[in-house]
Amino acid sequence: MIKVGILGATGYAGAETARILSSHPDFEITAAASRSFSGKAFSDVYANMKGVLDITLDPPDSAGLALKADCFICALPHAASQSAVADLHKAGKKVVDLSADYRYSSTDVYESTYGVSHEYPNLLKKAVYGLPELYRKEITSSKIIANPGCYPTCSILALAPLVSKGLLEADTIVINAVSGVSGAGRKANINYQFCETDGNFTPYKVTGHRHTTEIEEQLSVISGDKINVGFTPHLAPFKRGMVATIYAKPSAVLSQDALDNIYNEYYRDEYFIRVRSASDIPSVKAVAGTNFADICPIYDYRLGRIILISAIDNLGKGAASQAVQNLNIMYGLDEKAGIGSMGLYI
Amino acid sequence: MIKVGILGATGYAGAETARILSSHPDFEITAAASRSFSGKAFSDVYANMKGVLDITLDPPDSAGLALKADCFICALPHAASQSAVADLHKAGKKVVDLSADYRYSSTDVYESTYGVSHEYPNLLKKAVYGLPELYRKEITSSKIIANPGCYPTCSILALAPLVSKGLLEADTIVINAVSGVSGAGRKANINYQFCETDGNFTPYKVTGHRHTTEIEEQLSVISGDKINVGFTPHLAPFKRGMVATIYAKPSAVLSQDALDNIYNEYYRDEYFIRVRSASDIPSVKAVAGTNFADICPIYDYRLGRIILISAIDNLGKGAASQAVQNLNIMYGLDEKAGIGSMGLYI
Amino acid sequence: MIKVGILGATGYAGAETARILSSHPDFEITAAASRSFSGKAFSDVYANMKGVLDITLDPPDSAGLALKADCFICALPHAASQSAVADLHKAGKKVVDLSADYRYSSTDVYESTYGVSHEYPNLLKKAVYGLPELYRKEITSSKIIANPGCYPTCSILALAPLVSKGLLEADTIVINAVSGVSGAGRKANINYQFCETDGNFTPYKVTGHRHTTEIEEQLSVISGDKINVGFTPHLAPFKRGMVATIYAKPSAVLSQDALDNIYNEYYRDEYFIRVRSASDIPSVKAVAGTNFADICPIYDYRLGRIILISAIDNLGKGAASQAVQNLNIMYGLDEKAGIGSMGLYI
Amino acid sequence: MIKVGILGATGYAGAETARILSSHPDFEITAAASRSFSGKAFSDVYANMKGVLDITLDPPDSAGLALKADCFICALPHAASQSAVADLHKAGKKVVDLSADYRYSSTDVYESTYGVSHEYPNLLKKAVYGLPELYRKEITSSKIIANPGCYPTCSILALAPLVSKGLLEADTIVINAVSGVSGAGRKANINYQFCETDGNFTPYKVTGHRHTTEIEEQLSVISGDKINVGFTPHLAPFKRGMVATIYAKPSAVLSQDALDNIYNEYYRDEYFIRVRSASDIPSVKAVAGTNFADICPIYDYRLGRIILISAIDNLGKGAASQAVQNLNIMYGLDEKAGIGSMGLYI
Repeated sequence: MIKVGILGATGYAGAETARILSSHPDFEITAAASRSFSGKAFSDVYANMKGVLDITLDPPDSAGLALKADCFICALPHAASQSAVADLHKAGKKVVDLSADYRYSSTDVYESTYGVSHEYPNLLKKAVYGLPELYRKEITSSKIIANPGCYPTCSILALAPLVSKGLLEADTIVINAVSGVSGAGRKANINYQFCETDGNFTPYKVTGHRHTTEIEEQLSVISGDKINVGFTPHLAPFKRGMVATIYAKPSAVLSQDALDNIYNEYYRDEYFIRVRSASDIPSVKAVAGTNFADICPIYDYRLGRIILISAIDNLGKGAASQAVQNLNIMYGLDEKAGIGSMGLYI
Repeated sequence: MIKVGILGATGYAGAETARILSSHPDFEITAAASRSFSGKAFSDVYANMKGVLDITLDPPDSAGLALKADCFICALPHAASQSAVADLHKAGKKVVDLSADYRYSSTDVYESTYGVSHEYPNLLKKAVYGLPELYRKEITSSKIIANPGCYPTCSILALAPLVSKGLLEADTIVINAVSGVSGAGRKANINYQFCETDGNFTPYKVTGHRHTTEIEEQLSVISGDKINVGFTPHLAPFKRGMVATIYAKPSAVLSQDALDNIYNEYYRDEYFIRVRSASDIPSVKAVAGTNFADICPIYDYRLGRIILISAIDNLGKGAASQAVQNLNIMYGLDEKAGIGSMGLYI
Repeated sequence: MIKVGILGATGYAGAETARILSSHPDFEITAAASRSFSGKAFSDVYANMKGVLDITLDPPDSAGLALKADCFICALPHAASQSAVADLHKAGKKVVDLSADYRYSSTDVYESTYGVSHEYPNLLKKAVYGLPELYRKEITSSKIIANPGCYPTCSILALAPLVSKGLLEADTIVINAVSGVSGAGRKANINYQFCETDGNFTPYKVTGHRHTTEIEEQLSVISGDKINVGFTPHLAPFKRGMVATIYAKPSAVLSQDALDNIYNEYYRDEYFIRVRSASDIPSVKAVAGTNFADICPIYDYRLGRIILISAIDNLGKGAASQAVQNLNIMYGLDEKAGIGSMGLYI
Repeated sequence: MIKVGILGATGYAGAETARILSSHPDFEITAAASRSFSGKAFSDVYANMKGVLDITLDPPDSAGLALKADCFICALPHAASQSAVADLHKAGKKVVDLSADYRYSSTDVYESTYGVSHEYPNLLKKAVYGLPELYRKEITSSKIIANPGCYPTCSILALAPLVSKGLLEADTIVINAVSGVSGAGRKANINYQFCETDGNFTPYKVTGHRHTTEIEEQLSVISGDKINVGFTPHLAPFKRGMVATIYAKPSAVLSQDALDNIYNEYYRDEYFIRVRSASDIPSVKAVAGTNFADICPIYDYRLGRIILISAIDNLGKGAASQAVQNLNIMYGLDEKAGIGSMGLYI
C-alpha cells in the first residue's frame, strides 16, 4: 500500500478525498491534517466515517507531515498551498494540489487573479495542470500536479474538441455555469445557511469570477490563439454537482452529426468522459458522486449556433476524485482504481 | 365584491390564483371548476385552504360556469382554453386566460408552435397580451387578456428597455433560464418525483422550447424588427421562482451608468419592477410568492457585452398574481390590490 | 394606524413579524431595530422586502425606541429581552415579547431552565402567557404578553382538551416533535449550513430541551395537577413548520368518536385551530406561512392508546403571527386582521 | 465471479442493489429484469450508470431468468415475489427476497397484514429472516433469505439488546419513525412529487402500518413473550435514510452506564452496528449510502424512561446493502465485501 497524506482533510474537498482513499485498493491514509480539528479523530468531524476512518488529525505542519507518507493531496485554501506544496516537494514527495496556487503558467495572471504574490515561481514551472484527458503524459512524469478548478474542468472538457480544431468563432463563447452549494466550502456563512439557500437560486460574480482566467489560459493553450470567454456562475440549492451550458458560434459549417463525430472521436478512449445526446441530456444526478464528465454537443440549426452541456460533480471530477485520478496516473496504477463507481442516484 | 370564477382551479396556477383571490379585498370567488376533483371541496385538494376556501368544485362546464360569476380566470391547459374562453366571452364575461391560446397575433405561429389548430381566429384578434408594464392601456379596454408565459414575462421585461431603443445587436441574444419545478404543473410524472428532482439540475428542450416564439413575437413588436433569440431552459430543485440570465452584444457604446439610467427611467413608475444592481443581484428568494420582477442590467467592460439578470416567481408574476394584476386593471382597481405583499422569505 | 416597533427585526422571527405587519390594515411600522444591521435599510437585509419595507434599522436602544411607537414586538434573544421589555413597559408601551423571559410564573423555573437570573420578578407577575385560545381574556387587559415558544404552542394546544378534563394517565405523555431549520434562528453556524442540513434528519437535546419546563408548567396549570412530559425534538430539512406526534394513555374508556367530539367542542369557536381527522392528517405544508394550528386526535383501539398530531408554523403560530394575533387582541381589533390568509402551498 | 441476477432491477431498491453489485469484487451481474423497461439498457433508466452497467433489461420471466445466474436478488413488490422466489428456488438458485412475502413464520399474520393469500407455505418455513446480526448462522445454511423491511431493521436492531434481556416493561414501547421519500418507491404519484414533498413533513398510517406486525413477530421471538408495539411512521423531505426514536419504560433499575455496556457488549463483534452516545447522536447523514446501523441508547433519569435512537439508510441496511450482506454470508465471503464503504456525506 502506498502511504498517502491529506492536508486540509476536513474541508469538503479534503474530506471527500479522504472518503475515496479510505477504500482505495492501493493507498493507505497515514496522515490527515486539519487546522481547525487537529487532535480529534477524523470521524468526530465526519460522523459517517466512524469505524471507517478514525485516524487522529494532525496539525497543519507540512514539514512534519512529510515524514508520514509517500505522497500527498493538498486541499488547503488558495495562497496557503504555496509553501505547503514547496515543503512537501522539497522532501521529495509527490503532491496533488487542489488550490489555484500552481495552476497558472505565469505568476502574473495568478497574482492579478488571486491578489497575492507567488513565492515559488520555479516550482510553478515544474507543475503540470492536472486534467488527465489533456495532459496524461505530462502528469505521469511530474511530481507537482495542480488539480484544475471545478468550473474550468467542466468548461474546458466541453470546449476542447471544438477549440482545438479552431471551430469556434473568436469571442463568442459564453459559459453559463451552475454549481451546488458544496462549492462554497465548509464554513459558517449566513449566505449558505439552509434557510437562505434552500428554495433560492442566484447568479454571483457575474463578470469577474476567478476561474475565468484559468479557463482562458487553458483554452488559449489548446487553441494556439488567445481566447476570451464570458463566464457567469450561479448558485443552486443542491449539495454537489455542476452544469455548464455553453453558447458559441461556429466558425465553419457544422451539423449535429459532425458535432457528434468530433466529440466521440476526441474522447474515444476516455472512460471518464461520457458523450451524450440531446435525448439523454447531462444532469447533475448522473454525475454526482462520480468522476465522470458528461458532455453533450448540440447544433441549433435554426440559429446556426452551438450549445454545449457539460456536467460534473464539483467535489468529484472537479476536485477529489480527479485528484485521485491524477495520483493513480502518477503511480502508474489503473486510472479507475478507487474511483470507478461511486455515485448514488438517490 | 366582484364575483370571480376560476377554471382549472386545482392545477398549481389555478390554485395560486384561488389563494390570492380568497383574500383579495374586491373579489369574491363564486365558482371554481376542476376536471379531476369536481364535487370535492377546494380545501380537500389543498389542505392549507381549509377554513379559508372550502367552496365545492364545479365540473368544467364553461357555459354553465358563466352564470356564476362576472369575470373569470382560466387556468386550463393549452388548447383546452380555446373554447372555454370563447364560451365565457360569448356570455359577456371578462376573461384572463393563462394558457398560450390567445397570446399570439396570428394563428400561424400559434399552430406551428403548439401543434393544434386555432378555432377562434376572430377572438384571437380581440385578445390583448397581458403584460401590464407594456400594454396597460390596451388591457383596460379589453375583455380577453392572454396572460403571458412565465419565461416570456421574465425575459421580455428584462430586454424591453434595450430592445425598444435598438441598443442590442441583432441575433446576439441568448437567454439562459432556470425554473422551479412547479412550472411542470401538478401531475404525477416520474421525472418530477422528489427522489428524481431533489439534488438534480438539468437543461431541457435546449433549442426548441415553445416559449421561444412567444418571446420572439413580443420582442419583434417592441423592436419594430424581427428578433430571434436563443432560449435554453433548465429545471432546478426549488418549487417556485425563475431566473433568466441573458447575454447580448450592444449595438452602441454603453456603460454601467448608461444601463442603470435606461432601466430606472424605463420602469420609473412601475411598482412591480425593481431595478437592482450587481451588489444586490436578483434571486429567487427575493421574488418567490410576490408579483415583483427584479431586473439587473450589467455591463461587462472587459468583453463589451451586456448581461441581464431577471427574476420572477413563475407562479406569481409568471402566472397567478399577474393574472390578478390584469383583473385589477380591467376593473379600474388599485393595481396592487390583493397582490401588494405576499412573499415569504423563509 | 397604530404605530408599532420591532426589536430584533432582522432575526427570522422579527423579520417575519415585520413582513406581516407591513401589510396589516391597522398597524404601521415606525421603528425596527437590529444590533447587527443598524443604519441599513430593512430591505438591504431582506431583499424580498425592497419597495415594501425600506425603513432604516435603528440601533437596539429600547429607551430611545420607546418614543417611536405605541406598541412593540420584542424579538430579542432570551435574557436580552428582560430589560428591553422593562424599558418599554416603563414608557407605557404595550409589548409582546417573543423570548422566554416573561413566560414563567416564577423566577425559579425560568432561572434553572435558562441559566440566567431574572431581574424583573414584579414584571414577570404582570405578564400574561400569550396563547390566545387559552388566555384571550387575560391578554385583552395585559400590557406585557409573553408569546409562547413554538414547541409549547404546538404541544399545549394539542393536549389541552384532554388534560383539562383529566383524561390522560399521569406520566405517560411523550411528545416527539420535529422542527424546520428556521427554529435555529438566523446565524452563521456550520450545523445549519445547507450542505450539513439538506438530506439530514436528527434528534437533538433528547432529554433536556428548555421548552420542556414551559410545556409542563402550562399543562400543570390546565390540569390542576403537576404534569411531567417526555419531550424529544428533532431537526428536519425544511425551512418552516413543526409537527408534534404525541403519545399517551387515556385514564378512562374513550373512542374515536369521543375524541372527535371533545376536540371539536373545545375548539368550536377558534378560527385558528383546525381539528382534522386521520384521513386528513396534519402536515407542515397545510400550516406553513399561516397562523393555523392543525390538530388531529387518534384513538388506537388495538393498544388502547391516544396519538395526537399537531402541526403549526414555528415562525407563524409559533412566533410572529401569534404575536400579531396577541397585538390584535390587545387593541380590540379583529383577531384575524393581517394574519387571516398568508400561507403558500408551493 | 459469481453470477447474480436481479428481479425488479429498476425500482429504487433493485437499482441500488445493481449499483452495489456492479462494483462488488465477487459478483458479476448477468441478468437484470424489469417489467416496465425490458429491452432497454439499465443505464437508459439510470443515467448515472452509463458506462458502468449497460446490461439490457430482461422481461420478468423468473423461470427463464433462472438460467442466467447462480443466485438472485428479488426486488419485486409484495405478492409478486411469491412465485418468482418459488421458481428460482425450484431451479436450485439462492435467493434474497426484498419483499415481505417470506418474512413471517406463519401464513396467517402475512395474509392478514398484506391482504393476499400465501401460495407457498412450505417454502415459507424454509426461509430465514435476513437480519445478519441476529440470524447469521441460519443465513449461512439457507437458500431463501427474506430481507427485513426497513422500519423493522431500524427498530429491531435498536430494541434487541434490551428486549432479549427482558429489560423493557411490556406494552410501553412506542416507535416514532421517520423515513426519506425513496421508501415510497419509484412510481409516479402526486403525493411524492417534488412540489408536494419538498418543505413538507407528515405522519402517515398512524396506527396501522404493515411493518408493525413484522416488528412484533421478531421482538416476540427475541423476547420469548408476545410483544406489542406502537408504531407511527412519518415522511420527511430527504431522499434516503431513516431514524427511529423509540420510547419505553425499563422493567428494572438502569443507568446510562448500564445501557452503554449492554449495547456495546451486544454488538461487540458487529462491524455494521455503531453504538453511539448522546453527544454523537445518530443522524441520517452518518448512515446514508452505507450499510451501517447507528444506535444510541439514552437513559432519561428525570422520568426513568429509556429513549433509543436508531438510524439506517432505508435503501442500504434497510434494503439493498443488507441484501448484499446476506449474499456475502450465504457464499462465505467477507461480510463487508462490496459494502464496506459507500456513503457520501455531502
